[in-house]
Amino acid sequence: MFFTQTGLDPRCQARTGRIETKNGGIDTPIFMPVGTAGTVKALTPQQLAEAGAQIILANTYHLFLRPGTDVIKEFASLHRFMAWDKPILTDSGGFQIFSLRANAKVDDQGVRFKSHLDGSSFFLSPEAVVDIQNVLDSDIQMVLDHFAPYPAVRDQDEKALRLTSHWAARAREHFLRTNRRNFQFAIVQGGLHADLREKSLRELSAMDFDGYAIGGLSVGETLEEFKQILQPLAPRLPADRPRYLMGSGTPEDILFAVENGVDMFDCVLPSRNARNGTLFTSRGRVIIKNEKYKCDPQPLDGDCRCYTCRNFPRAYLRHLFMSREILASILNTIHNIHFYLDFMAKIRYAVQSLKFIEFKEDFLALYKGD
Amino acid sequence: MFFTQTGLDPRCQARTGRIETKNGGIDTPIFMPVGTAGTVKALTPQQLAEAGAQIILANTYHLFLRPGTDVIKEFASLHRFMAWDKPILTDSGGFQIFSLRANAKVDDQGVRFKSHLDGSSFFLSPEAVVDIQNVLDSDIQMVLDHFAPYPAVRDQDEKALRLTSHWAARAREHFLRTNRRNFQFAIVQGGLHADLREKSLRELSAMDFDGYAIGGLSVGETLEEFKQILQPLAPRLPADRPRYLMGSGTPEDILFAVENGVDMFDCVLPSRNARNGTLFTSRGRVIIKNEKYKCDPQPLDGDCRCYTCRNFPRAYLRHLFMSREILASILNTIHNIHFYLDFMAKIRYAVQSLKFIEFKEDFLALYKGD
Repeated sequence: MFFTQTGLDPRCQARTGRIETKNGGIDTPIFMPVGTAGTVKALTPQQLAEAGAQIILANTYHLFLRPGTDVIKEFASLHRFMAWDKPILTDSGGFQIFSLRANAKVDDQGVRFKSHLDGSSFFLSPEAVVDIQNVLDSDIQMVLDHFAPYPAVRDQDEKALRLTSHWAARAREHFLRTNRRNFQFAIVQGGLHADLREKSLRELSAMDFDGYAIGGLSVGETLEEFKQILQPLAPRLPADRPRYLMGSGTPEDILFAVENGVDMFDCVLPSRNARNGTLFTSRGRVIIKNEKYKCDPQPLDGDCRCYTCRNFPRAYLRHLFMSREILASILNTIHNIHFYLDFMAKIRYAVQSLKFIEFKEDFLALYKGD
Repeated sequence: MFFTQTGLDPRCQARTGRIETKNGGIDTPIFMPVGTAGTVKALTPQQLAEAGAQIILANTYHLFLRPGTDVIKEFASLHRFMAWDKPILTDSGGFQIFSLRANAKVDDQGVRFKSHLDGSSFFLSPEAVVDIQNVLDSDIQMVLDHFAPYPAVRDQDEKALRLTSHWAARAREHFLRTNRRNFQFAIVQGGLHADLREKSLRELSAMDFDGYAIGGLSVGETLEEFKQILQPLAPRLPADRPRYLMGSGTPEDILFAVENGVDMFDCVLPSRNARNGTLFTSRGRVIIKNEKYKCDPQPLDGDCRCYTCRNFPRAYLRHLFMSREILASILNTIHNIHFYLDFMAKIRYAVQSLKFIEFKEDFLALYKGD
């Protein structure tokens, strides 16, 4: 079995599970640190593993451009190229159609991109995206999808949904013909329309993917809109497959999504914020440049057992940040990634103890910060 | 005993020794990685220790400006502030009188600086520099010294020498009154004049410092000039004290200096070059961005056992460098620092085996590179 549900808190949809891949297992709910270009910024694979990472996310579009499929082909897998021996999920490039849309032209066949690196032009079809991910040998492939920028009119969302379903069917067929080692997830679109989300889910479910993701959220909508889409949709994703909420990731978002049955998360927040000096702790966010930390001898988070918290006072972290030292990014990222992964471990424990609601309330009561 | 000579290759001046400090011992000849602002750029203290670092160098002037003595005072030592529990040597700020000379005004009493960070003005006397280093609790303090920019006329070198001796006497007296835990080194100046170097050494030797450094080299002079000063001078530094060549550090420089009796080195070369993508290997320097490494599956240096060489192909290091990823600086610095420290360990082994000359010749025969 690729996915097994191992626990459920009966008062909500929160559940635990286990995913098995050729590169090892993953306990869910899980957070996947983002390693867009084949590196989780500022961390060695060793530090990532020490922080408790079970799986990371990399990006098909970015790796296709640089270093290029020809390079990674020499190494049989992205894992060997980057010396990460645990599972990798690769995003498809669908998000880049959105985020780099000034450089992208979409039609029925796929998407024509101008490289954001050197302006060169190339075409990605749903099948080509599978082929690239086959070269990366990612354990979990995401299909090429499409969604309209927020705010969209219903007509745009319908068109994007139609394309997403059409591409998903082609990608699924191509994947099943070319790949027997790995797994493939579809991405539910439909914007902020509950009925379109439902339609997207129905069409994709019929294609029997190994897992289902919710895409097109955390792209500018309000928290209220985010919740209104997620709450009814997440529990309706197939219960015998992993459910993945793409790109969302404050601790509050994760608690809300887990409560509604989501198993997998990725977000640049912990790593990007680390580099910007915003740190996640059990007492809320710490803005490390604040004057009050100038002589502070305490660890960042007294409840954290990461390398940073075990060794360095806040005053030193502030000094490194003010001096723009590389070590600031390193120590801050070690902490933030550890915090997120530890947070997920606590969520899993709470669900298995049938105490998810209590955990959520206790966590949020302490989580105030700067 | 602070310093004990433990070996000597009788065919030259190359020797091994042992320095003992309150924070542990140091085997010489040793290379000290440069941690100007209380961090060896891009490395955690754990990675530094794994690379084999026995002692690091930090900078009094920089730490005085930021984070400031008031901050470090809260932590009893720089070691605790930065979580480095092995010895630290602190440079005095004399080099900054040179490198930041547009902001510095020297007189008999000391030096008035305008901060390169915020333009604020402050005064450093030889005694003040000792006091700051007492707060840092550095195991080895360097005295405040002075030297003229290259090329200098003899008159400037004489004046700088006079000031250096005068300041050294004051610094020594102040140190002996205020510090019983640590050690203090003088810095021999005198520019490119053998007789002035001799005079400087004579005056400083009379003050009975714990060790002697050669300053004012690797500041623009030719390799020939460097060698002409170093060769006669180094072996005349007191044999029962550590001899330290400041700021020099190609592998070729180090071999030449060890052959002439030098025990200690520091240089930004391995760490700065790492960040610029120039890597030291047993086959010479590797410029990692070169196209020929694009698909190269080999480790950077097949003879190296560092974390980088044990795990990553050159193609990945090139990809990280081309993508300007922080991990490029990290993995490259791990390697370069490991290479330097391993190089020093091999030198010590060669001296103890009475095979230093053979080691030098074998090393240089292989050391070609890009």
